Amino acid sequence: MKTVLVIGGGVTGLKAASELAGMGYNVSLVEKEDYLGGQVVKHKYYKLAPDLRPAGDVIDPVIKAVESNSNIKVHKHSRVVSVSGSAPEFKAKIKNSKGESEETFGAIVVATGFEHFDPIVKQEYGYGRFKDVVTNSEVEEMLNPNGPTKGELKRPSDGKVPKKIAIFQCVGSRDKQVGNPYCCRVGCVVSTKQAIEIKEKYPDSEVYVYYMDMRMFGRGWEELYGKAMEDYEVIFTRGRGAEVTLKNQQLSLRAEETIMDRPIQHSVDMIILAAGIAAGDGTIEAAKVLGIKQNDYGFLAPKDDFLSPNESSKAGIYIAGADKGPLDIENCIVEGAAVAAKVASNLKN
Amino acid sequence: MKTVLVIGGGVTGLKAASELAGMGYNVSLVEKEDYLGGQVVKHKYYKLAPDLRPAGDVIDPVIKAVESNSNIKVHKHSRVVSVSGSAPEFKAKIKNSKGESEETFGAIVVATGFEHFDPIVKQEYGYGRFKDVVTNSEVEEMLNPNGPTKGELKRPSDGKVPKKIAIFQCVGSRDKQVGNPYCCRVGCVVSTKQAIEIKEKYPDSEVYVYYMDMRMFGRGWEELYGKAMEDYEVIFTRGRGAEVTLKNQQLSLRAEETIMDRPIQHSVDMIILAAGIAAGDGTIEAAKVLGIKQNDYGFLAPKDDFLSPNESSKAGIYIAGADKGPLDIENCIVEGAAVAAKVASNLKN
Repeated sequence: MKTVLVIGGGVTGLKAASELAGMGYNVSLVEKEDYLGGQVVKHKYYKLAPDLRPAGDVIDPVIKAVESNSNIKVHKHSRVVSVSGSAPEFKAKIKNSKGESEETFGAIVVATGFEHFDPIVKQEYGYGRFKDVVTNSEVEEMLNPNGPTKGELKRPSDGKVPKKIAIFQCVGSRDKQVGNPYCCRVGCVVSTKQAIEIKEKYPDSEVYVYYMDMRMFGRGWEELYGKAMEDYEVIFTRGRGAEVTLKNQQLSLRAEETIMDRPIQHSVDMIILAAGIAAGDGTIEAAKVLGIKQNDYGFLAPKDDFLSPNESSKAGIYIAGADKGPLDIENCIVEGAAVAAKVASNLKN
Repeated sequence: MKTVLVIGGGVTGLKAASELAGMGYNVSLVEKEDYLGGQVVKHKYYKLAPDLRPAGDVIDPVIKAVESNSNIKVHKHSRVVSVSGSAPEFKAKIKNSKGESEETFGAIVVATGFEHFDPIVKQEYGYGRFKDVVTNSEVEEMLNPNGPTKGELKRPSDGKVPKKIAIFQCVGSRDKQVGNPYCCRVGCVVSTKQAIEIKEKYPDSEVYVYYMDMRMFGRGWEELYGKAMEDYEVIFTRGRGAEVTLKNQQLSLRAEETIMDRPIQHSVDMIILAAGIAAGDGTIEAAKVLGIKQNDYGFLAPKDDFLSPNESSKAGIYIAGADKGPLDIENCIVEGAAVAAKVASNLKN
């Protein structure tokens, strides 16, 4: 049976690898970092929406299924630097610090995931200028007992727990000015989850979420939203974050209330930016090395959005997960399985 | 190789069947109606969001892939009436008008889809009482040149083309009173698509959408929303539909503007209800016959939402698509492939 190359060791790539191995294929999994688990591990996700289930309950077994499978060869800290040939016989050069090796593959799965939008681009929000303007990924790390603040939410400026916290949604999402008109799909639910976690830990804190539309469309998300309002008194205000200023060590925000065009002014101790989802370097690199099509935003383009969602523009090269566009963890796992099916049925025929 | 039973001939079941057959399995596909294609065919979907691509371009090849595959046996107008045994050997009785047959299967995939919420329950909207209050599925049929009005949007009361049209979002969705607190995921995008189709065909018409949050999170959805506002002048107003009245043959609506609590009053010629998504009879019946778990809303519950999204509470019985909860067509197709992978890797081991 042929060997399949999977590029990317986040949830999608891990799931694709273990399903393919389960069907009897040999798999080589190439991951650029020296760990598996992608963004979940990188940003020390602590609890997952909507159930506030420990992230480890999900990512650990997904990693273990790969590491314990003798049909899967894991190349950490490695990159695919060149690919030649065509379906069903590709030759790929895999490079790491020890050197380069070439292997032959029947199919290639690209599961290179996403990277967060860098909010430094939105200068008006003060990220990078004001220490207490942080990203939701940084908050995720803080809320983790194994993170840099041992589970405490702390203001980077003085190490104190903030009392008034504002969360800005859609930072680098739904924003034509920065070239990302699309929705990040996960910002609303992650912010709602973090707001609950903060209120749970610090009941006296005040948490304000500024949003354009609350897009709580996933399993259990709407219920989580109700819980945040009713049980935790998180204050959701419709308005887009416009500007952050710092005067006499006091952070202040301005938001635009979108219905009445009424400006909102508000002094807070910390501002959390729900940073959007962008195509990562790994995705852009894979597109280049493999010569497969990207969409207008740099994400990988399926051969046919409806009919061939997991096939790239090139025969024998498959795509799955958040390298195709923003996607939550639950659906990345489904994508990992779906791409495995497509690879298997194509290799069979 | 074992035979797999797939229950449901909508997009998800069709995709699962063809991927399984592609991997070498024999498949029996059981569909309760006398046609394949599920809701897409039932409601004569004409164009799909976000590309306004003809629905036939998608559903026809998905059906053909099943009908032309000699490894798939299609039982139309049939039901699975009883199942005994356990994984990997189930015996299922399949019944149709000609009688009953029993077959042995290695695995069972449930892909019984959804049904729309029946808006007659929301009496205040007047559906069933006022002829010109229609559902988005009825509009879908009207907009189809092969539909009952040959592609024309017509008021059922007098056969005239309406000039002022209002669309109510979230009918039977995000509504605790009717027991459906969850989001239907597709209402916003379908309404936006229909609004564009109406304005395209009748440029002089006025289309008003009343919504709580515009949840345009899918591929190309946000861009479609922008197009509806900028290119087609569809008027989106934040407010929930509250009541519809009829006086001197004039329809009138009341909506609640949710920011300022300001009531909206509006006379229109037609009201379209974006009816939510509910667990269908086929799903409820399958859960009963197979003895698998449902969630609070009647949808099928995965063994583990993250780790085993396509496995039911019973070994060897799999679930996929909109019988697990609201889902759009693109993602149903991905689910169909994902469940095929899981069946294949489990049957192999």
